[in-house]
Amino acid sequence: MSEYASMEKSALTAACQTLSEAYAAFKAQGLSLNMARGKPGSEQLNISNDMFSVITADTDFTSEDCPDCRNYGNLTGLESARQLFANLLGVEPKNVFVGGNSSLNMMFDTIACMMEQGNSGEKPWNQQGAIKFLCPAPGYDRHFGVTQYFGIEMIPVPMTENGPDMDLVEKLVSSDASIKGIWCVPKYSNPQGITYSDETVRRFAALKPAAKDFRIMWDNAYIIHDINDTPDSLLNIFDEVKKTGNEDMVLEFCSTSKITFPGAGVAAMAASENNLAILKKRYNFQTIGYDKINMLRHVNYFKNLDGVLAHMQKHRAVLEPRFNMVLDILDKELSGLGIASWTKPNGGYFVSIDVMEGCAKRVVALCKEAGVILTGAGATYPYGKDPKDSNIRLAPTYPPVEELEKAMNIFCICVKMAAIEQLTK
Amino acid sequence: MSEYASMEKSALTAACQTLSEAYAAFKAQGLSLNMARGKPGSEQLNISNDMFSVITADTDFTSEDCPDCRNYGNLTGLESARQLFANLLGVEPKNVFVGGNSSLNMMFDTIACMMEQGNSGEKPWNQQGAIKFLCPAPGYDRHFGVTQYFGIEMIPVPMTENGPDMDLVEKLVSSDASIKGIWCVPKYSNPQGITYSDETVRRFAALKPAAKDFRIMWDNAYIIHDINDTPDSLLNIFDEVKKTGNEDMVLEFCSTSKITFPGAGVAAMAASENNLAILKKRYNFQTIGYDKINMLRHVNYFKNLDGVLAHMQKHRAVLEPRFNMVLDILDKELSGLGIASWTKPNGGYFVSIDVMEGCAKRVVALCKEAGVILTGAGATYPYGKDPKDSNIRLAPTYPPVEELEKAMNIFCICVKMAAIEQLTK
Repeated sequence: MSEYASMEKSALTAACQTLSEAYAAFKAQGLSLNMARGKPGSEQLNISNDMFSVITADTDFTSEDCPDCRNYGNLTGLESARQLFANLLGVEPKNVFVGGNSSLNMMFDTIACMMEQGNSGEKPWNQQGAIKFLCPAPGYDRHFGVTQYFGIEMIPVPMTENGPDMDLVEKLVSSDASIKGIWCVPKYSNPQGITYSDETVRRFAALKPAAKDFRIMWDNAYIIHDINDTPDSLLNIFDEVKKTGNEDMVLEFCSTSKITFPGAGVAAMAASENNLAILKKRYNFQTIGYDKINMLRHVNYFKNLDGVLAHMQKHRAVLEPRFNMVLDILDKELSGLGIASWTKPNGGYFVSIDVMEGCAKRVVALCKEAGVILTGAGATYPYGKDPKDSNIRLAPTYPPVEELEKAMNIFCICVKMAAIEQLTK
Repeated sequence: MSEYASMEKSALTAACQTLSEAYAAFKAQGLSLNMARGKPGSEQLNISNDMFSVITADTDFTSEDCPDCRNYGNLTGLESARQLFANLLGVEPKNVFVGGNSSLNMMFDTIACMMEQGNSGEKPWNQQGAIKFLCPAPGYDRHFGVTQYFGIEMIPVPMTENGPDMDLVEKLVSSDASIKGIWCVPKYSNPQGITYSDETVRRFAALKPAAKDFRIMWDNAYIIHDINDTPDSLLNIFDEVKKTGNEDMVLEFCSTSKITFPGAGVAAMAASENNLAILKKRYNFQTIGYDKINMLRHVNYFKNLDGVLAHMQKHRAVLEPRFNMVLDILDKELSGLGIASWTKPNGGYFVSIDVMEGCAKRVVALCKEAGVILTGAGATYPYGKDPKDSNIRLAPTYPPVEELEKAMNIFCICVKMAAIEQLTK
């Protein structure tokens, strides 16, 4: 196939005619397909169903640090759960806080805590006037949402294949004390599936922020979420900040939402003792403790980190063919046309595609008209504003395989139609 | 027995000698007894153990409003859970929000939301300068803690046998626009076990606050937690505010913490559509949704409100003899001495006792020395300051019965010793 840009207008118009017919045929089917959110599909949810039978009336509800897991208490989580997450995150159990079912909620509470209490001896963020957060983009829309809710100004930072543009991060963070933090999904980033390089992690650990109360929100959502034989590996940032004396700069989050159940998983965070002390001050007023039975359910089900890792192989078995299908269709339909580029992640939940500049909104609209729901164009950028109107996030995990195939074919048709519209207008 | 106040000093000193010997004998036993917190005991926790078997791999995870309860979604809770709590609270399901495992957390989030977003078209509370909350006292220390965390000034309001002193509440609320709310435990209040009279509820519903954004935090924690044959009944405040046009003034909270499991229950709130819209704006950034599997577990286990009410009878069977024992010992040891008065609740989790003025701290300290942990003296008052140093909260539910009996006997000795110390000093 030749590149669209080098084709005659008449040839493009002819191509568009064929595409329009295919599009109309799909549209006539009255489809309702969804590739919008990073939700596990039913097959993945079934993987963990046996977990429900782990806790019974006969379970031993005592644990070393808790006389009865059914009762109140244990604000920082069951010790056994802290140990399991400590092994997962590569930190000490004393640096782990295990909470409710949502790491997003934990991140929200963490930002709220910094807003109201402050940290590192500085005034609460909400008493410091206008403050800012760096937002590597494309990124996770819900991170941007939390920042926006608290009135924190967002500064986009471009992503490179090694993670955020660290030259820019270093320059901004070291020169502007009103920059209080940065959102990172360091492994299999949302949406691009990029894993930060060793150098990127080391440069993060070595940051010299102008703001003493600068915090890295290290959302390790896809920490063990590989989808093929060539998984990425990520440096342990807590090992690195120990070397640079920056232990208080990093707050790491993870959850079992995409390991067991999105609606009934367990979230955890790792942080320095200073940071945990600040957060516990808040949590101590906020709750008496999170659901310890669900923590126990997870611990008893997995036994240890090996149990978790073995479990992830089952997810991989479901996800690998889905991602391959998506990438194959993109390759077959779009490569060589010069109208789109996309990532080929080794893990995570998304394929990120950059369509021709100025076309992303049009592609999403065309798809919607044909019954295919995508993540809104722009959603992967702060304030929903993709400066190039180019990035689209594809989420291959949720729809049944046959729907996914159909949705992808429609998607590719729309990408081509939008490109031709752009080139011929 | 004659009243201590009318006894000769020599007789008191002699009595104290006998008490001191009994006290020393207990102390020598090296006891470790705890009557501090309103925690269910093991026997109560066992009542709900069958709930763990309700959800299995074979459960139907679909529901009318949710394609799969295991997955993300349903921010306001499963419809079936909203229905169950609606029946419990006597409101419409559309007015119910079902959340995580902690109603305290839900109240904390509600206050946080009002601080940051405001309500009724007024500025956020944290942009209105110094604001205040009314705190009926004695009351629940964790309510006071939340208020204090957010820097809200607390104004104590005396409790009467019909609830808070409504003359004072009306006067303050109607005259001071910086008063933004009041904490209420309207049924079997913590710690006194007082249920607000119909008149009190009606007067609450008819309040004409100077602040448009005034909110009643109606913590109905003990809504069906009767412990004997003569339960109290509480007017449904939402019925009343409908009549007065004050639907936006009340936020009601409850949970299954003391119905199923404190560590693994489900919390819910009832609120007007206006209030829910405000709260949902926050929750929408805070989380994708709470643990729907645990909601489903509760719904499938109880089936309906009758199931919940039948379940509460089992709790009552455990609690009634405990409360009777506590009250019998108080009666036998302290009545007629003129040194203490206490409540005889028909439900809830506490017996509230007023010892001789200036003696509460001493009693708690004496108990502690003898190995009996009580709720800290003053904890039931804002800022931990009981102006009379008189109120002590007894929590009879948690310790094994034989320990409870021993603890109560020690407690009564300490009450008498402290009184005599006071009278003879």
